[in-house]
Amino acid sequence: MQTPWDHRYAKRTQYMASSAIRELLKLTEQPDIISFAGGLPAPEVFPVEEFREACERVLVDNGGQALQYGTTEGYLPLRELIAERSARYGIRVTPENILITSGSQQGLDLLGKIFINPGDRILVESPTYLGAIQAWRAYGAEFVTVPMDEDGMLTGELEEALRAGPKFIYVLPNFQNPSGVTLSLERRQHLIEIADRYGVPIVEDDPYGQLRYEGEHLPTVVVLDGEMRSNCEHCYRGNVIYLGTFSKILAPGLRLAWAIAPPEVIRKLVQAKQGADLHTATFNQMVAYEIGKHGFLDEHVNLIRQVYGQRRDVMLQAMQREFPPEVHWTHPQGGLFLWGQLPASMNAAELLKDAVQQKVAFVPGEAFFPLGGGQNTMRINFSYANPDDIRTGIRRLGQVLYQKIVNKDPTGFQKPVRSGA
Amino acid sequence: MQTPWDHRYAKRTQYMASSAIRELLKLTEQPDIISFAGGLPAPEVFPVEEFREACERVLVDNGGQALQYGTTEGYLPLRELIAERSARYGIRVTPENILITSGSQQGLDLLGKIFINPGDRILVESPTYLGAIQAWRAYGAEFVTVPMDEDGMLTGELEEALRAGPKFIYVLPNFQNPSGVTLSLERRQHLIEIADRYGVPIVEDDPYGQLRYEGEHLPTVVVLDGEMRSNCEHCYRGNVIYLGTFSKILAPGLRLAWAIAPPEVIRKLVQAKQGADLHTATFNQMVAYEIGKHGFLDEHVNLIRQVYGQRRDVMLQAMQREFPPEVHWTHPQGGLFLWGQLPASMNAAELLKDAVQQKVAFVPGEAFFPLGGGQNTMRINFSYANPDDIRTGIRRLGQVLYQKIVNKDPTGFQKPVRSGA
Repeated sequence: MQTPWDHRYAKRTQYMASSAIRELLKLTEQPDIISFAGGLPAPEVFPVEEFREACERVLVDNGGQALQYGTTEGYLPLRELIAERSARYGIRVTPENILITSGSQQGLDLLGKIFINPGDRILVESPTYLGAIQAWRAYGAEFVTVPMDEDGMLTGELEEALRAGPKFIYVLPNFQNPSGVTLSLERRQHLIEIADRYGVPIVEDDPYGQLRYEGEHLPTVVVLDGEMRSNCEHCYRGNVIYLGTFSKILAPGLRLAWAIAPPEVIRKLVQAKQGADLHTATFNQMVAYEIGKHGFLDEHVNLIRQVYGQRRDVMLQAMQREFPPEVHWTHPQGGLFLWGQLPASMNAAELLKDAVQQKVAFVPGEAFFPLGGGQNTMRINFSYANPDDIRTGIRRLGQVLYQKIVNKDPTGFQKPVRSGA
Repeated sequence: MQTPWDHRYAKRTQYMASSAIRELLKLTEQPDIISFAGGLPAPEVFPVEEFREACERVLVDNGGQALQYGTTEGYLPLRELIAERSARYGIRVTPENILITSGSQQGLDLLGKIFINPGDRILVESPTYLGAIQAWRAYGAEFVTVPMDEDGMLTGELEEALRAGPKFIYVLPNFQNPSGVTLSLERRQHLIEIADRYGVPIVEDDPYGQLRYEGEHLPTVVVLDGEMRSNCEHCYRGNVIYLGTFSKILAPGLRLAWAIAPPEVIRKLVQAKQGADLHTATFNQMVAYEIGKHGFLDEHVNLIRQVYGQRRDVMLQAMQREFPPEVHWTHPQGGLFLWGQLPASMNAAELLKDAVQQKVAFVPGEAFFPLGGGQNTMRINFSYANPDDIRTGIRRLGQVLYQKIVNKDPTGFQKPVRSGA
């Protein structure tokens, strides 16, 4: 249908084009496919009963307020609860440092809106979270990347990258999406030192920080920054904007997250949010507060850790058993994802087509590299499928990999190689 | 607190500065003030019981889905329900024409994101909805205005205004926010004819269309456009993007609205929304569907009409009784607002200061004029305060007006005029 809208799109829409990968992923939505593609929490662990009780209490006690417009900053008791929980992890802030957002994705979008002029550069890990690339490209951002290894961003390469004059540094230090990798304590300190020396601020995105299945909790970047040259221990210095979310510790279907920032930045974010959606749903904020106010979240996070930790173990064991030795993968200490690396000559998007034929799916890694590359990488989610499906799915994926890599089927019979093929 | 963020704000933030009016309005939040300032629905009519039942059913039957991530387009049964309800008002569309948004404010923001390049002009009524000005200024929009009278936009002045080459025309034809005025049928047709002749598309914002308290329902602009030169009666031609919302017919605290547009525009909006907040809360969409699926909304809209219609009548009668003859106001046939006009020499922002002293508040009209002007106008809400408070508030406002205008107090005694004062 031709309409007068057709030739009126803004220039920025050219950066919003649906990726080939998104088209591929539509194939993975068939119900009989075992999908390691999404980044979905396991619905089995959603605290449905607590939600029922909380909805009931909120509506009976405060229905008029819960269904009414609210303030853009967010529901004050929820912001107080977030401040109190943050303090336990060493982030000392008050509600005026906190904005409730409609998911962390909105936090990224609003940061783009208030900070990014067209052509501005943002320094990111490579690979990095696809949603940040999407959100910021719409504001005309360009990207400068620093590669990673099993200990996260190679901070030794940071000074060189800072010559490009990035507006800020974006990091996901814990169990990164997509790689599953955790930034080591030494590198966290190195990152902060360099950022401080060059006066470049940091956005720390930490959706999975509490979902650790082995090893000790590492202080977040915002906490380490607070300890640096501060006359008050753990004080928030304001150099780091921190993004947290209820999506992974409670439920993503609420679209409820928060940004921690200096009060002046919060005021600007509030102005941007007013134009974007007025405020986050009052009802959702009050229900989350009702569920969280008496400490349920701690208990619930323990349950999630147990379930996802087991799934991670099942997946790692299955990969060890089923994958050819030419394939490498990360060993995440927490979070939802691990990262696979195929031989350099292989293409993960091509592999996905074969995998979908065999009823198993993952995300080709290319989309997570803002400057291109990574054609031989893949993101694999271990939180959503149950242990049996993980075993079956990894077995199928292993068969596809064996066929591709050693050109023989998993029964061990070498396939005839046609001359000229 | 100085931080490295201080000098890093994007240029567009200069258009986001908190207005003087917003600062004034903070004064109106004191609990003993009778406020006609907000645009709030009456919480007494929120269907709290229906919400309780719907939350319970959604969580018991589909908790796993309700709390999980959802598609960016929105929950399909809800989009089907919206399509079905739209058809009753003459808009024949399918779910692929519908995007669920986090309130209509997000619809405005996403339209700005996909259509507005810096410097683009948007043609609006003068005055127009403040939230649209806020949302679109952030994308660098400039505004071209067409004045209004009691029958809405003066479409006779439209062709002249179109010479500025606006990207689209933005109208609120029913009980406009802020003026309360309704665009007449003749002018709706005139608007469509001219827009069609010049090939300029229209955004129709219709949050209050169903809240009519007198007179006959007028076909919306999108419906009249569909009837024009179409070989299929009521077919959606795609020239008009229509914004509807659950905020006024159900509850604003859900942040639930929708945009109707050609499928290609919906696809672009979906891409923009992915970067903005991934999707609107699944739980909220399922609860709204559960409440709406068996026709409850019709019954509920009737209740709202009755309550708000009475409040409008009480306010109009009180104004007739209490206001000086120098003050004029509109007679809205529906919606939430009426519009007051003071003598040209008066300043409504100054008046508000005196009004707040007397514990009554409204919104000075100036902010609704994107090119300035309107210092002597005021927006008055009649949906939120109950009838007794409306009478008391209007009496107080009348006293302030009498003092200002005829320099005498309402007891009828002329105040002594000091020489040189």
